[in-house]
Amino acid sequence: QGTRDHPPARVALRDRLLGTVVSCFKRHGAAAIDTPVLELRETLMGKYGEDTKLVYELQDQGGELLALRYDLTVPFARYLAMNKITNMKRYHIAKVYRRDNPAMTRGRYREFYQCDFDIAGHFDPMIPDAECLKIVYEILSDLQLGDFLIKVNDRRILNGVFAICGVPESKFITMCSTMDKLDKMPWEEVRSEMVGEKGLSLEAADHIGEYVQLHGGLDLIERLLQDPKLSQNKLAKEGLGDMKLLFEYLTLFGITGKISFDLSLARGLDYYTGVIFEAVLLQQQNDHVEEPVGVGSVAGGGRYDGLVGMFDPKGRKVPCVGVSIGIERIFSILERRVEASGEKVRTTETQVLVATPQKHLLAARLKLISELWDAGIKAEMSYKKDPKLLKQLQYCEDTGIPLAAIVGEQELSDGVVKLRDVATREEVRV
Amino acid sequence: QGTRDHPPARVALRDRLLGTVVSCFKRHGAAAIDTPVLELRETLMGKYGEDTKLVYELQDQGGELLALRYDLTVPFARYLAMNKITNMKRYHIAKVYRRDNPAMTRGRYREFYQCDFDIAGHFDPMIPDAECLKIVYEILSDLQLGDFLIKVNDRRILNGVFAICGVPESKFITMCSTMDKLDKMPWEEVRSEMVGEKGLSLEAADHIGEYVQLHGGLDLIERLLQDPKLSQNKLAKEGLGDMKLLFEYLTLFGITGKISFDLSLARGLDYYTGVIFEAVLLQQQNDHVEEPVGVGSVAGGGRYDGLVGMFDPKGRKVPCVGVSIGIERIFSILERRVEASGEKVRTTETQVLVATPQKHLLAARLKLISELWDAGIKAEMSYKKDPKLLKQLQYCEDTGIPLAAIVGEQELSDGVVKLRDVATREEVRV
Repeated sequence: QGTRDHPPARVALRDRLLGTVVSCFKRHGAAAIDTPVLELRETLMGKYGEDTKLVYELQDQGGELLALRYDLTVPFARYLAMNKITNMKRYHIAKVYRRDNPAMTRGRYREFYQCDFDIAGHFDPMIPDAECLKIVYEILSDLQLGDFLIKVNDRRILNGVFAICGVPESKFITMCSTMDKLDKMPWEEVRSEMVGEKGLSLEAADHIGEYVQLHGGLDLIERLLQDPKLSQNKLAKEGLGDMKLLFEYLTLFGITGKISFDLSLARGLDYYTGVIFEAVLLQQQNDHVEEPVGVGSVAGGGRYDGLVGMFDPKGRKVPCVGVSIGIERIFSILERRVEASGEKVRTTETQVLVATPQKHLLAARLKLISELWDAGIKAEMSYKKDPKLLKQLQYCEDTGIPLAAIVGEQELSDGVVKLRDVATREEVRV
Repeated sequence: QGTRDHPPARVALRDRLLGTVVSCFKRHGAAAIDTPVLELRETLMGKYGEDTKLVYELQDQGGELLALRYDLTVPFARYLAMNKITNMKRYHIAKVYRRDNPAMTRGRYREFYQCDFDIAGHFDPMIPDAECLKIVYEILSDLQLGDFLIKVNDRRILNGVFAICGVPESKFITMCSTMDKLDKMPWEEVRSEMVGEKGLSLEAADHIGEYVQLHGGLDLIERLLQDPKLSQNKLAKEGLGDMKLLFEYLTLFGITGKISFDLSLARGLDYYTGVIFEAVLLQQQNDHVEEPVGVGSVAGGGRYDGLVGMFDPKGRKVPCVGVSIGIERIFSILERRVEASGEKVRTTETQVLVATPQKHLLAARLKLISELWDAGIKAEMSYKKDPKLLKQLQYCEDTGIPLAAIVGEQELSDGVVKLRDVATREEVRV
C-alpha cells in the first residue's frame, strides 16, 4: 500500500524529468553522493518531530537496529559529521520511505524519490541561500510547468513575531508546525488550534494573524525593519537584514518577479534555523489540460545550521542550506499532461529492427544483428525462427522503431541489405 | 554493517560503469522498469531455498508484513504475473538487500546494486538465451576488464547426469546447491558433502565426478550426445540438443572463443530450469596492477520457466531467461585499478569558475554567473564576499575546473571578462 511498480512508460518519463533536475544540479557544480537506504534507528529518532512515528523500522533479526531513511537531509548531516567534512556542495537523488497516509492521485506515496541539493560550509550570509532559490527557479522554468511562485521567509523573523506577540520561546517550534497548516486550512482554523491546542490567548493569536497576512518584496522588508516592535527584536532584525541582502542577490539573478516574502510560510520540520522557502504552482486556466487541484508545494527547503552538530561528538556545527525538489508531485502533473496530449512515450531507443521476409533465414538475421550491435547500433529482432514480415513491421510501428533492415534470399545473394523507413515505407538497398 | 556511504569519487566511477551497462541493455532494445524496495513478505518466502533466512524483514508496525527485496528476478516475475504480461524485454538496475556475512574487500555487501536484463515470452529455443550470453560478452569487453570466460551448462543436462548416476529426483535441487560450491572448494570436499550430508553412495558420487570434470565446446556436446547412458536420458538429450543449437547461434555471434560448456557449473538458486551460465575473470599477470584474488563470478544467469507461474493464480507459465551483472565486484576491481593508476576522477563537471581579483565585486560575480547558468554553462563561484584570487585559482586546480572567468575593476569598466586557461595560464579578454 502506498508503493507502486513503474512500468517502462513511467520510467522513461521519470528519467526525462530527473535528467532535467540533474542537469541543473551539475550546472551549479554539485557532486553526487549516495548513502544506504538503511540507517541506524537512533540516527533518525528525534529528528522529525511528531512525524518520527512515520519512520519504517526493520525487524530486530539480530545485529543493529535499523530503519529506512525518511529523507535525504538527515543522512547528509550524518555523512558530513561522520567524515568530518566542513565544506561540500552535493546532490542526492534517491528514494525515501514514510508510513504516511498515501494519497496517490496527488502524488503522495510511502516510497518516493527526493532530489536534494545542499551547500554545507561557513560562508558569507545569503550567497548559498540565493543560489538555492536560483536553482528552484531554473528547474521549474526548465520543466515548463507553467507559472509558479516561490515563497520565502526566515525562522528568525517568525520567532521574532512570536516573541513580540507574547508566545513563550518553548512554544516556537510547535507554533511553526501549526502555522505550516496555513496552506491546507484557513487562518480561522489555524487560529483556533493556536488558542485551543497550543494555549495561546486570543489577543496573541490575532496579533500573530496581522503579521501572518503580510507578503510582498523589498518594500515589505523595509517596512518591517521600521516596525517599532519587530525592529526591537534581535532575531527578527537579523532575519530581516539578511532577507534584504537575499533580495539584493535575487535582483542580480533577475528572479525577484517570482519571489514573494511571505510571513505565513513556516515549514513543518524542526531543524530549520534561518531562511525557509517553498515553491507552489499557480492555478492556471488552460484550455486543453485540467490541472490537478491542490498539488501543493513542488519544491522547498531552507537553512539548518544545527543538524550536523547533532551528529558530531563535539557538537561542531556545519551550517547548511538546501533545497528538495518534489519530483513525485511534478511527475504526476507531467504524466497527466502526457496522457491528455496523447503523446506516445517511447520506452526503448531501438534504431533498427533486423527482419527477414522468408523462412530459414534466422542465421542471416543473427549475423547481421551481431554486426550492428558490435558497431554500437541499437537493434532488435524477433525471437521467432520464422516470423512473418508483416508482424515484424507491425512491431516497428507499435514500438516506434524507425528503420527495418531486411535480409531476404535476394539480398543475401546480392550481398546487400534492404533498409526500410517504417513511416514512409521508402526502401533503399545498402 | 555491510553497507557504506558512497562519496562523490565513488559515485562518479559507479555512474561511468552503470552507463556502460545501460548502453548495452538499450542497444539490445530493453525497456526499464522499477519496482518498490518493499515487497510483501509472502512474495519472497520460499523463493531462495536456504538463503530465504537472509531476507531483511520490516517490523510489524500495523498493516502489511513487508520485507526488502533480495534480488530483482522475483519482483520481475511478480510484476509480470500481476500485470498479466506474457512478453517483455526489460532491464532493471537497483539495490537489493541480503543479511549475509559481508566481505567488503571482495565487493560483497548487504546493500548492493544488481543490473538485470531479462527476456520473457514464448519463443523458439535458445534465441533469447544466446542474446543473454552476447550481452555478457559485450559488457565484459566494453569494460576492458581483461580476459574472461563464460561457463555454460543446462539444468536438464545436470539432472540427467544425476539421474543416470542413481540420484533420486527429490535430491536434484539440493545436489545443485552442493555442486555450486565447486568454485570455492575442491572436488574431494564436494564429494564428501555429497556422500556425508546428502547420503549418496561413493560410487554414485564418483560417477558424477567423472562427468563434472568435463568442459569443452561443440566437440564435447557431440560426444555426450553419443554417450550410451546420457543419451538415453530424455532430459539430458533435450538439454544437449539445445546446447548444440546455442553453440550454433553463438558461432554466428562470433563469441564461442570465450564460451566453455562446463558440466561443473550448477548455480545455487532453485528456480533455474534450463540453460545456466556464469562469467569469471581469468587471473592475469599484470605488471602494474595486482588483481584481487578470488573475485569470483562477475555475471550470471539462466532460464527460469516456472517462476512467473508461481505468482499467477491459475499457474500460467511465462518462460524467462535473464542475466545479472555483478556490478559491485566489477566496481571493486575498477576502483582498485583507478587507485593504482593514480588517475584523479573528477566529481563535478564544472566548466568555469567565476572569479574576482579585488574586493567589493560580489555583485559583478553574481551577475556574470547568472548569465552563464542561464546559457546552460556549468559554473561555480566562491561563497565568500571577497575571496582571494589565488584561493579561487587553487580551487580550480583542486577540482579540475579548466577555465576561470575573471572580472576585475578594469574588466568591469571595459565591459569585458578575462578568460583564463587554468592549466596553461593563458588569458584572453572576451
